[in-house]
Amino acid sequence: MSQYLSDHVRLGDDCASVVILDQTLLPNEVKYLTLREPEEMFEAIRLLRVRGAPAIGICAGYCLAALAEQRKNLAPAQFRVELHRLSQHLNSSRPTAVNLSWALNRLGAQAHSMPEASPAQIAAALRDEAIAIHQEDIAMCKAISGHGLTLIKDGDGVLTHCNAGPLATSQYGTALGPLLLGRERGMNFHVFADETRPLLQGARLTSYELQRAGVDVTLICDNMASMVMKNGWINACFVGCDRVAANGDAANKIGTSGVAILAKHYGIPFYVLGPTSTIDLNCPTGDNIQIELRDPEEIKSKFYAQSMALPEVKCYNPAFDVTDHALIAGIVTEKGICRPPYTQSLAALF
Amino acid sequence: MSQYLSDHVRLGDDCASVVILDQTLLPNEVKYLTLREPEEMFEAIRLLRVRGAPAIGICAGYCLAALAEQRKNLAPAQFRVELHRLSQHLNSSRPTAVNLSWALNRLGAQAHSMPEASPAQIAAALRDEAIAIHQEDIAMCKAISGHGLTLIKDGDGVLTHCNAGPLATSQYGTALGPLLLGRERGMNFHVFADETRPLLQGARLTSYELQRAGVDVTLICDNMASMVMKNGWINACFVGCDRVAANGDAANKIGTSGVAILAKHYGIPFYVLGPTSTIDLNCPTGDNIQIELRDPEEIKSKFYAQSMALPEVKCYNPAFDVTDHALIAGIVTEKGICRPPYTQSLAALF
Repeated sequence: MSQYLSDHVRLGDDCASVVILDQTLLPNEVKYLTLREPEEMFEAIRLLRVRGAPAIGICAGYCLAALAEQRKNLAPAQFRVELHRLSQHLNSSRPTAVNLSWALNRLGAQAHSMPEASPAQIAAALRDEAIAIHQEDIAMCKAISGHGLTLIKDGDGVLTHCNAGPLATSQYGTALGPLLLGRERGMNFHVFADETRPLLQGARLTSYELQRAGVDVTLICDNMASMVMKNGWINACFVGCDRVAANGDAANKIGTSGVAILAKHYGIPFYVLGPTSTIDLNCPTGDNIQIELRDPEEIKSKFYAQSMALPEVKCYNPAFDVTDHALIAGIVTEKGICRPPYTQSLAALF
Repeated sequence: MSQYLSDHVRLGDDCASVVILDQTLLPNEVKYLTLREPEEMFEAIRLLRVRGAPAIGICAGYCLAALAEQRKNLAPAQFRVELHRLSQHLNSSRPTAVNLSWALNRLGAQAHSMPEASPAQIAAALRDEAIAIHQEDIAMCKAISGHGLTLIKDGDGVLTHCNAGPLATSQYGTALGPLLLGRERGMNFHVFADETRPLLQGARLTSYELQRAGVDVTLICDNMASMVMKNGWINACFVGCDRVAANGDAANKIGTSGVAILAKHYGIPFYVLGPTSTIDLNCPTGDNIQIELRDPEEIKSKFYAQSMALPEVKCYNPAFDVTDHALIAGIVTEKGICRPPYTQSLAALF
């Protein structure tokens, strides 16, 4: 399965570091980084060296486990204080994806459940928990891929936005999962990948992953989705998600809501694919989801050979938007496909 | 009016050349080019050194006049054959904007109307005709700006796509005209400029022109338009047009149709602004408009410091799309604002 770069986030052999593929360098360079210091880990998430909601969760789990391993000789009380502080710090690296706090809370709960254990015992337990999160993600992606594959047929055109493939998760990915699983089974899809400005995850990562896996992929600029749909080339839209509210409103990469509105206009079903860990029943609607605002230079100059706007020009750079549940034909989880009304169908998953 | 770079296309002092501002270098460099050879002129249009439907028309007029001036000592019959050949060649530089052929045909008709004239007399007449096209465009832009200004009020938020400002036309521009005219009158608008991938006319040109003119402008990626509209920041969308069919279907920069669909979804009026020369009553619907397909490298590598997708990844790169007339609240021309049904209101202009 190495063709999917599924080893792009893993615990170091010493169990005290995390090895990640630096996704900011793709597709021009395949470079692995070893993260050891809390600040390196924080920056790796903050700067999107590792990105994609599930992958962030997996990475955060490994990071906290590695930091615990490094500190296993501390006095028990100090160890727990440090663990809490480091978890809080990692959790502040990005605000939108629920998986980050979900993974860290899961490790925190594990530590909390072992009041009499030594730091070394806790560190070992956190490592097991982080590995479990990763293993569960692989199983979840495969299940999501199987469910999603029932929504399309051989020869279909599928439009996707941003990257919810193996690099964003593990193995098959979520939104790209059905396409990769279908390809393994000999099916042929025609995928249109939005380049996904400003950070170009669609160009750099999605077209890269699909091309490597032998899936027919065509790269387009985000603003070409309307024309591709009008041409009749798209049978379904598949996107990932960073947080799904209890009513089905789904936060995902900026631009996703626009794709959903276009899809509705052209009568094309729009599906959100993600693990149940992405569903936040404590969040009633999309209005309660905090949207990360990022550096204007990502729009004006990042990736460009020179600045593409005057230095004094203001930019608005939200990292995500929220797609209204009314625009979503189905939310595909590892437990099956939820259909409207989502308030009921999502709650029934838990 | 030099703040608007309104001298960005003009006849050279020798009347045998054309001077243009190279728009491909903005905003990092303000460089004027003198075009003398037919191939330089063809390339200047083809490579978008001069772009925007009205500006292409103005430029083509000056180019043909300059080429005629250079050839005024040819024998009359040979002069006419050359003139025809050069006009055909210029006309083949880009396929979508009607203004290119409109301007060239206008000069051709002028030459045709002077069967007894010498080449020198024809060259002088073509020069006058080209200058008239330019002068009329200035008057048209001002009229369009005035009509457009009646559609918004002080303090409004306006979203625009691509560049239909002074650089695309002359002086005020079309879609940006009401904003610049209103600013001159002391009004304040909050403009959101789509960067307009792949060639970034919104970032490089629109935000540049508005910032220089003291208009409040915020640059966004194309895929952020949905969120900006959802935030309630947009009262109207203003875009230019490259060709309007008899039924009101409007071809404009790729992505325009997507903006129109989003605007409809959010209940925001979407206006197309352009001179009547852009309206092609011989073209029944948008389906009859030829859409230019451009080089995939514009998506993958142009402007970027390095390639952003694998070399083998396919791209689809249409330069324009067609916005369905049902999505357009009004078409603003120098003669006034046309409202649906456009088949009647557009025909009534002529």
